[in-house]
Amino acid sequence: MRVSVIGGSSIDGETAAVAEALGERLAERGHVVVCGGLGGVMEAVCRGARAAGGETIGILPTDDRGDANPHVTTPIATGMGHARNALVVMNGDAAVAVDGTSGTLSEIGLALAQGRPVAGLDTHDVDGVEAVDSPAAAVEYVERSVGRPSGSERD
Amino acid sequence: MRVSVIGGSSIDGETAAVAEALGERLAERGHVVVCGGLGGVMEAVCRGARAAGGETIGILPTDDRGDANPHVTTPIATGMGHARNALVVMNGDAAVAVDGTSGTLSEIGLALAQGRPVAGLDTHDVDGVEAVDSPAAAVEYVERSVGRPSGSERD
Amino acid sequence: MRVSVIGGSSIDGETAAVAEALGERLAERGHVVVCGGLGGVMEAVCRGARAAGGETIGILPTDDRGDANPHVTTPIATGMGHARNALVVMNGDAAVAVDGTSGTLSEIGLALAQGRPVAGLDTHDVDGVEAVDSPAAAVEYVERSVGRPSGSERD
Amino acid sequence: MRVSVIGGSSIDGETAAVAEALGERLAERGHVVVCGGLGGVMEAVCRGARAAGGETIGILPTDDRGDANPHVTTPIATGMGHARNALVVMNGDAAVAVDGTSGTLSEIGLALAQGRPVAGLDTHDVDGVEAVDSPAAAVEYVERSVGRPSGSERD
Repeated sequence: MRVSVIGGSSIDGETAAVAEALGERLAERGHVVVCGGLGGVMEAVCRGARAAGGETIGILPTDDRGDANPHVTTPIATGMGHARNALVVMNGDAAVAVDGTSGTLSEIGLALAQGRPVAGLDTHDVDGVEAVDSPAAAVEYVERSVGRPSGSERD
Repeated sequence: MRVSVIGGSSIDGETAAVAEALGERLAERGHVVVCGGLGGVMEAVCRGARAAGGETIGILPTDDRGDANPHVTTPIATGMGHARNALVVMNGDAAVAVDGTSGTLSEIGLALAQGRPVAGLDTHDVDGVEAVDSPAAAVEYVERSVGRPSGSERD
Repeated sequence: MRVSVIGGSSIDGETAAVAEALGERLAERGHVVVCGGLGGVMEAVCRGARAAGGETIGILPTDDRGDANPHVTTPIATGMGHARNALVVMNGDAAVAVDGTSGTLSEIGLALAQGRPVAGLDTHDVDGVEAVDSPAAAVEYVERSVGRPSGSERD
Repeated sequence: MRVSVIGGSSIDGETAAVAEALGERLAERGHVVVCGGLGGVMEAVCRGARAAGGETIGILPTDDRGDANPHVTTPIATGMGHARNALVVMNGDAAVAVDGTSGTLSEIGLALAQGRPVAGLDTHDVDGVEAVDSPAAAVEYVERSVGRPSGSERD
């Protein structure tokens, strides 16, 4: 399946390691990562997914797909600024939030509003977000919620 | 100035009364209400603003401006679904959140991400949202934050 | 009713005079002008509409409503760049194209795709666009096509 | 490179054959097809590209990526209706128009407005569109215009 990973664009090394491990885990389980395509959590999760041979979709706020981080395999330009946040979560079957500030909060809201299950790793404490304590637990939660175990179909 | 009012589309009578009082107060102070144009808090705040002779802009998720509640003076159709939430807060100088669920949470996040001050009336407890206990206090907070007292200029 | 006026952002004096006369005519007939909010035809049509006491809505590509020309009474920021062209024509009951290049062509296509009647003043020669030779003829065409004579209802 | 292919959603067998041959040719030359993800020209070009082992991105107007035709390898949901047309052409380095009505006209306008070279196969006669008489000539034109011969880099 596809999993949207949302989180801060300015993060410390520990958060980067968590996001990278999450990307690896998602790719190992056959899932495609969807994210906002830029830096911070977005870049770290893509790096991890690529290291495990996975695919990554980056839905950018700008109109130039060259703005994507180097680990995005399919950059999508939108030129829509913050309005693209709705597309980031619309294009996943579930979401995992890692850290993050207001932009991430908006994506959590948009994911819940669109009926996506959301796991949270050290992120906003919001009703409807399942707080988990490891990348593996996040992946397990979204797999269980969506009811599709390991992915193999067209993304 | 313009104030975006965000909140639940399915609300009880008490919340409706608060939203309506907020609309009245904003209009009395010369402010234009911006909202999502549909029911619940959106309709109540517009009804209040109209009762006090104010203007109301409703930025709709659908492509039919006829979907606006009857108290919207300027309906704007977008056909963009949830992505329109970004436009609702972008078009205000500040925001007031009243009650609400995940859609409102997304708008709070988008407002903060775009640097808008946000007052909250019985809504999500989020860093950066100023919890207030009355419509008058909400209006006072956003006026003080934006640094523009009572509005008279082109909305 | 609402009429979307689309056209070039860089125009000569003759085209500006046509657009201004169109704005006056629309306002005299009680119609609200919808446009892209910037310069050229957009500014001239708003100037004309304002001179006759009409209302003007400017749906901007940027996220700053301060970018609107001074004759826009209700600026709407979108931050969506070219994608906002769809909203310009969606928010009118009909469209009039004046001069213009590729952006105007896209709006003609979007208007026709959304079922709006389109009158053309010295613009692209496209199937479905009614070529007219004066602002008065343009207004007459869109009134007849929409079947609503002079406007008086909520915009 | 990426090439946006735009065209009618309701087409005859001859047009489908042209679009399919275009998809094959693009894929043989190493290019990724970007399209609106639905039927008609969009489906035929994806079928051709897949037959030649190529990749296809479908940027949908709906919020459900399951609406993509079966030959789309990376569906992107937008929920934005006609406004997504801007994204279809933004995500290609060049565009080829095949047949088509008003929606295609809007995409031609949006492509030109965003500076994309556009080749046309039996489509609207518009200034700036290079009329060509075969899929091979269309591919040759966009390759020459973009100045990147056969693609091998990240899409």
